[in-house]
Amino acid sequence: MNGPVSAEPLHRPALPEPTYDPSSAVFQHHLGGKLAVTARRPLTGRADLSLAYTPGVAEVSRAIAADPTLADVYTSRANTVAVVTDGTAVLGLGDIGPAAALPVMEGKALLFKHFADVDAVPICLATTDVDELVETVVRLAPTYGGINLEDISAPRCFEVERRLQDLLDIPVFHDDQHGTAIVVLAALRNAARVVGKPLADLRVVVGGAGAAGVAVSRILGRAGVADVVVCDSRGVLHVGRPDLAPHKRRLALGTNPRGVQGALGDALRGADAYVGVSGGTVPEVALAAMAPSAIVFGLANPDPEVHPDVARRYAAVVATGRSDFPNQINNVLAFPGVFRGALDVRAGRVSEAMKLAAAWAIADLVDSPTAVEIVPSVFDERVVPAVSAAVSATARREGLARS
Amino acid sequence: MNGPVSAEPLHRPALPEPTYDPSSAVFQHHLGGKLAVTARRPLTGRADLSLAYTPGVAEVSRAIAADPTLADVYTSRANTVAVVTDGTAVLGLGDIGPAAALPVMEGKALLFKHFADVDAVPICLATTDVDELVETVVRLAPTYGGINLEDISAPRCFEVERRLQDLLDIPVFHDDQHGTAIVVLAALRNAARVVGKPLADLRVVVGGAGAAGVAVSRILGRAGVADVVVCDSRGVLHVGRPDLAPHKRRLALGTNPRGVQGALGDALRGADAYVGVSGGTVPEVALAAMAPSAIVFGLANPDPEVHPDVARRYAAVVATGRSDFPNQINNVLAFPGVFRGALDVRAGRVSEAMKLAAAWAIADLVDSPTAVEIVPSVFDERVVPAVSAAVSATARREGLARS
Repeated sequence: MNGPVSAEPLHRPALPEPTYDPSSAVFQHHLGGKLAVTARRPLTGRADLSLAYTPGVAEVSRAIAADPTLADVYTSRANTVAVVTDGTAVLGLGDIGPAAALPVMEGKALLFKHFADVDAVPICLATTDVDELVETVVRLAPTYGGINLEDISAPRCFEVERRLQDLLDIPVFHDDQHGTAIVVLAALRNAARVVGKPLADLRVVVGGAGAAGVAVSRILGRAGVADVVVCDSRGVLHVGRPDLAPHKRRLALGTNPRGVQGALGDALRGADAYVGVSGGTVPEVALAAMAPSAIVFGLANPDPEVHPDVARRYAAVVATGRSDFPNQINNVLAFPGVFRGALDVRAGRVSEAMKLAAAWAIADLVDSPTAVEIVPSVFDERVVPAVSAAVSATARREGLARS
Repeated sequence: MNGPVSAEPLHRPALPEPTYDPSSAVFQHHLGGKLAVTARRPLTGRADLSLAYTPGVAEVSRAIAADPTLADVYTSRANTVAVVTDGTAVLGLGDIGPAAALPVMEGKALLFKHFADVDAVPICLATTDVDELVETVVRLAPTYGGINLEDISAPRCFEVERRLQDLLDIPVFHDDQHGTAIVVLAALRNAARVVGKPLADLRVVVGGAGAAGVAVSRILGRAGVADVVVCDSRGVLHVGRPDLAPHKRRLALGTNPRGVQGALGDALRGADAYVGVSGGTVPEVALAAMAPSAIVFGLANPDPEVHPDVARRYAAVVATGRSDFPNQINNVLAFPGVFRGALDVRAGRVSEAMKLAAAWAIADLVDSPTAVEIVPSVFDERVVPAVSAAVSATARREGLARS
């Protein structure tokens, strides 16, 4: 989850100084990198070599040249996802460049493999130009069954994703947007059940108008939540604000039906739910002004917008992105199953309906949500099968499945 | 080894029609592809996740942002090679495009892993434009420790490699050129020992002026072989020929010291060695006119320029690219050890001296060459350690090693 835009108040805590302790568990764990490329079948001698490489491989290449769809059958393509970044919005670290982004992309690839048996490879690009990012990924596409865009800063990420999906017939999925949005929607639906309010009736404040904030706001709208108010570091997004960048202007047009103006505190007055995806912080007084049985999600990592101990004083349901508090809202609940489901049926894209289906599948895994269990654990082994089945089925229903 | 240029005579046998038999061993072996991406360390639960991904990974990213050289220590980059193609000169199949090239690139990646524990990933690009190929690979470079160019047709391959190596500080190695050249030089040195002629005194005819022919001719020159004559499908390359493309004109300028003109048969008259890297065929009458104790390498796959049974009637030492005849001259003797050696010392490129050192290392593994053993087996486990040690040592001596 990136956070180039922070919610009010303006100051965000400075990141701690880098600590480089080669003897620490983290650095020891990273020695030599985290990924390896291995053979799916043993290669024990001349006979295997003549199947896997020349002369045998020539038959496979000829067959694919005659029928390109066979590449999905006889190569690793159909199960391989490129995790593509330009290193501009990495975790909470910001624009640290492609080399420093690589450990994160390797980690993401590990999660793909571990949770969904998707073979994922990092692609860290030495350009931040939108045109160059798009044309580069288009040229790479013959090698991959899907593209996971990662940690590309807003607003460039919107155009990069849209143009790539228009140009390619494989799923292009910016996880900072849609993975976050899917999991937030799942969590919010179950939180609404806990507090006994219909999801569609919730007044929701989204803190952050970057990649995650935009996607969360949009998916909530599509899920029927009519009253969404978005705030950036300068306050509420409304159509009268003269300082809005184009993507924020579009967001203001599609949200804020009551025409709220002012600061985050004004938006939170009487609100049923706060979804922080910004890295900012929320004043305690603003939390106190929320509606009864409020829902507070502070999803910035590692420092939530609201510390859960503080949030619990004012809210009935509290969630963070962290594993050391209840209700961890983490993209890993979504993206492995979303890609698994899309790849399984060779869907050409991840549609809005597929994203909604993923959210409902995650939410449905919690039979009786409580204040401390609105989403399943990221280690719940039912998650990926449920999400992928829902995504595949929706793709089929929409005619987006090719197998 | 590609073969866009064929030696005289002009006709080359048509490729057999594609046979697509899904039940055959080759297609069964390729089901689902040949590669997987795996974790180097187990990922068993929350604790591992917090080391490999958030929050732990942020420390590693911060450290690399502060000191980019740490990417070679704490990511898979330093051991990962991109096998890059545009699909224009795949095996003997020609321009079959990036999707059909993928099985070959996967096979190459398997060989990298199996023989040298190099993690290699295929990159099949949907462009054949030189500028686009160069800029794309430059953008990809932060992810990789080396670039193996593969099956890119001549003459584009020369410019792509040269420009990339100028722009990047990691090895860029077009295997169809240099892998072939290294192994041919190793084999020719030992063949010369078998027939009792000094290597430098050999009169060598190279059949083919494509990627392999150019590189073989160059490495022979650097190894002290003064009399190299190159033929393409129209005959001998000499400076008086008006039809030469620029790369062939350069080749003509640097070879053919006796000013031979005419057809392949004219070049072979009195020649000590023929090195076919073209896919053409050689008339038997031309073989008969070679010098006594001749050396004949017919390296086209699967159909050598000269069938070894025919060649043996006229030559003392015969080699092919095939595993079912003695003296298999195969790039796999070279590229795994070359990259292993270059990556081990983080060399910024593979210099000419490193290529020569690799050739001598391969040749030296055969203590007493005979007519049926001029190179070690591709399964000889001494090959990669010997080649990589020679390459690393040469890089150190030349000041090209960075670790």
